[in-house]
Amino acid sequence: MAHIGLNAEIPGIGAAFAFRPETAKPMRELAHILLFEPGPDASLSSRDRELIASYVSSRNTCFFCQTSHGAAASSHVGGSPELTASVCASPATADISDKLKALLIIAAHVQGDAKSVTSEHIEAAREQGATDLEIHDTVLIAAAFCMYNRYVDGLATWQPRNEEMYRAMGKRLAEHGYKQSSGVRS
Amino acid sequence: MAHIGLNAEIPGIGAAFAFRPETAKPMRELAHILLFEPGPDASLSSRDRELIASYVSSRNTCFFCQTSHGAAASSHVGGSPELTASVCASPATADISDKLKALLIIAAHVQGDAKSVTSEHIEAAREQGATDLEIHDTVLIAAAFCMYNRYVDGLATWQPRNEEMYRAMGKRLAEHGYKQSSGVRS
Repeated sequence: MAHIGLNAEIPGIGAAFAFRPETAKPMRELAHILLFEPGPDASLSSRDRELIASYVSSRNTCFFCQTSHGAAASSHVGGSPELTASVCASPATADISDKLKALLIIAAHVQGDAKSVTSEHIEAAREQGATDLEIHDTVLIAAAFCMYNRYVDGLATWQPRNEEMYRAMGKRLAEHGYKQSSGVRS
Repeated sequence: MAHIGLNAEIPGIGAAFAFRPETAKPMRELAHILLFEPGPDASLSSRDRELIASYVSSRNTCFFCQTSHGAAASSHVGGSPELTASVCASPATADISDKLKALLIIAAHVQGDAKSVTSEHIEAAREQGATDLEIHDTVLIAAAFCMYNRYVDGLATWQPRNEEMYRAMGKRLAEHGYKQSSGVRS
């Protein structure tokens, strides 16, 4: 049971969003820009952005976020449940670009102590072609999921174990993004 | 030096906001609602909200956020540099209400592993009069500063050691909030 009076029929972060719509609005907008609609100059695909989100959530052991964003990554072009699982288990050996591998190393450091990101980590990503904007967005996706994960777990939201629900949610997020209130509810 | 090409004349998070105005907008709005303009039903004062922000930032050892939000707490009615320092050093013995002490215990758990927040922690806060909304906002302020802190430190933003600058910034934040772009710059 959740720590506060949340709607018991809404899983995960959707229940917290429904409880406090004022804060939900900017939190949805941030996810929408970072993951779904990153703008004309940004080159990391939504699949790769969702993989970073799922990977950081797995490191924070947040089941709801890892599973829903993993399902979103799987629903984007070039994604699959197997790829999501391999990125969360072992990014170094997953079937992804060397650039994304270098960015996931930065994301892992941000998830821990962000001050442990070194100029060598940044240089390694640049050598694989990462731009300032890609590095920025990687750092901010990792940082933002340290918020979303803690929000979901700190309120003890309902996180059902229901593969089909997460598959449908991932498909909806990959198609429509995060702005509509239906986007993150079951 | 920052890890990416940020404006070297803007300290802390302001430089990151200037680099990516699209994500800055919802991040500013979230801070504005959580800290400055929490709405008619919310009863935690802005001073107390800023104390939670500064305390969580001190636990994440984020100098810029701890100092700027500490200065904002000091600038609100009932705040002072001494009170901010005592809350960050030892909330249990600081000159604050028992309710805020109980909420700071919840905030500390959210800052670590958010799943470590127990129903006993929640019950202890309720016994001191905390409402669901106050508990919600405490969890979200703590979670959000796990994002802001990592954003500031993960990009290695410029964090000058200049007491007067932070005092002026805190005063501006306490008076005008977070929406205007001038709000978090020097």
